[in-house]
Amino acid sequence: MKKFLNNVDTLLDESLSGFAKAHADIVRLNSQPRYVKRVALGKQGKVALISGGGSGHEPLHVGFVGAGMLDAACPGQIFTSPTPDQMLAAAQTVEQGSGVLFIVKNYAGDVMNFEIAGEMLDCPNMTVLVDDDVSLPKTHSVGRRGVAGTLIVEKIVGAAAESGADLASCKALGDKVNLATASMGVALSSCTVPALGKPTFGLTENEMEMGVGIHGEHGRETQKLSSAAEIVEHIAAEIHAELNPQRGQRVLLHINGFGATPLMELYLIYELAEQFWQKRGLNITRSLVGNYTTSLDMAGCSITLSLMDDELMRLWDAPVHTAALRWGC
Amino acid sequence: MKKFLNNVDTLLDESLSGFAKAHADIVRLNSQPRYVKRVALGKQGKVALISGGGSGHEPLHVGFVGAGMLDAACPGQIFTSPTPDQMLAAAQTVEQGSGVLFIVKNYAGDVMNFEIAGEMLDCPNMTVLVDDDVSLPKTHSVGRRGVAGTLIVEKIVGAAAESGADLASCKALGDKVNLATASMGVALSSCTVPALGKPTFGLTENEMEMGVGIHGEHGRETQKLSSAAEIVEHIAAEIHAELNPQRGQRVLLHINGFGATPLMELYLIYELAEQFWQKRGLNITRSLVGNYTTSLDMAGCSITLSLMDDELMRLWDAPVHTAALRWGC
Repeated sequence: MKKFLNNVDTLLDESLSGFAKAHADIVRLNSQPRYVKRVALGKQGKVALISGGGSGHEPLHVGFVGAGMLDAACPGQIFTSPTPDQMLAAAQTVEQGSGVLFIVKNYAGDVMNFEIAGEMLDCPNMTVLVDDDVSLPKTHSVGRRGVAGTLIVEKIVGAAAESGADLASCKALGDKVNLATASMGVALSSCTVPALGKPTFGLTENEMEMGVGIHGEHGRETQKLSSAAEIVEHIAAEIHAELNPQRGQRVLLHINGFGATPLMELYLIYELAEQFWQKRGLNITRSLVGNYTTSLDMAGCSITLSLMDDELMRLWDAPVHTAALRWGC
Repeated sequence: MKKFLNNVDTLLDESLSGFAKAHADIVRLNSQPRYVKRVALGKQGKVALISGGGSGHEPLHVGFVGAGMLDAACPGQIFTSPTPDQMLAAAQTVEQGSGVLFIVKNYAGDVMNFEIAGEMLDCPNMTVLVDDDVSLPKTHSVGRRGVAGTLIVEKIVGAAAESGADLASCKALGDKVNLATASMGVALSSCTVPALGKPTFGLTENEMEMGVGIHGEHGRETQKLSSAAEIVEHIAAEIHAELNPQRGQRVLLHINGFGATPLMELYLIYELAEQFWQKRGLNITRSLVGNYTTSLDMAGCSITLSLMDDELMRLWDAPVHTAALRWGC
């Protein structure tokens, strides 16, 4: 294992401390229990948006805390759910009388711990469950995973909350974006969890992991490494079949790197995905390309497509000021 | 070699095409010869800023084209200088009567080709040479390399040009920022140039390359892999000795990833560098952490420190709207 590291046990705290110092104009870190919150909360009466999950996916979620997006994020240990005391403490700090919306990726531990926090919290709270990964069938026993589409939910609901939408509206909007969003990923290498010290799965020089998640777990299938064009064709076809968009449909196309894939390759993937959907008559009106929902040092990427309408476009374009997404303010 | 790829020969053009489509609100791509320019040029009479160099360092430089930064960037093949016809065509398109400033990283091929372009160009033009890499001694035969400090020069001079500074002022400002900036890098792995198909240097599991550049060349020394704290101590001490800042000096601290190093590790490096300079009484007033000046899929990072004053702070904070840096507009 080759990483910049002092001690596996202190890595997360040291890194979060650096994150909070580098972005002291945007966030504050609370250490016990661990959460990151906005320096300047929104208008009095704003619904509080809180997300979280295992660390190792940076900038998700701490990089999305700030004006126009999340009020707080609760980082667990690497690939490990945060505990309810984190969500509870974060909620008590950022709640402003209009309730709390939790945005939760669909993993058993996260779901359970956010649910416990919600039950313990003495204010109205609701949860949007994100399950945009179409690698798994809808009928999968624990449901589909939440992956790179999560940031689209967080950005759009964040804008609505900032402009005064109430808790039920934010919840409905989050569910709407989640339903309109589909993602699928492919890995060229595993990641290496620091505490484990070696890759969590092995691939030969000629293999790739298709339909992979973001926790170093095996994907749907180990396939022979193919051309970028074939990879995009495969993934885009799955996403297209899921969302079944009509010609002329406006969409947001998000190419997400898993952490170790250069931008040059991500823009190649964008080019190929853009060609795929151009051919099918879609109107790609918004794009996002980069490492946003990562899996430590995994090489690979995911493609996410979101069906957009006037409301969603307006909310996507609304000002946001976080460490990882910033525009309009 | 495991990369997302169709064909080594078409990779750059496919990727640039994707880049231009993903950021069609900001840039336009010209294919023959290759350059990327701003969609909306600045005010009439603005000095034109043009940079460029070998590809493989994305988002540098194409990701810095836009309002408040570069007017155009000329990408060469991977790790290969662009040719004078590219700079010439770009300059003729974006020049507005007040001359052209070239911002050039100090590599022999880049220096020669920008110089030829300058001679062929029938308008006033000057060049800022960036040589911020303190891994090499000042007396090195071809001088020091230009690395991650280049974006700081481009951002600050870009803001000045946008606000109407003339050619000589932009040139003087660029030289000033370059002199006030020092960088040094370390690699945990080599990169793999697609046309070569294998890593350009080898490192064992216990080795790192100290004082490395951004082209897969060997660094100053192959060292035994040490802790993040020791690595930062080593690099920061070299930078500190070079710039010799006084206590209370305001600085910008930039931690740059080379492409395959996760944000979690980059923020750990930030934390350690921040501690190093806090102890020495510096005032870290601005920060930038992420993959900005990359070396394809190399794992590693560099630390850059820039001495700031009121003028540089104001220009750093000025609005910028590019694919990779965006704030205030």
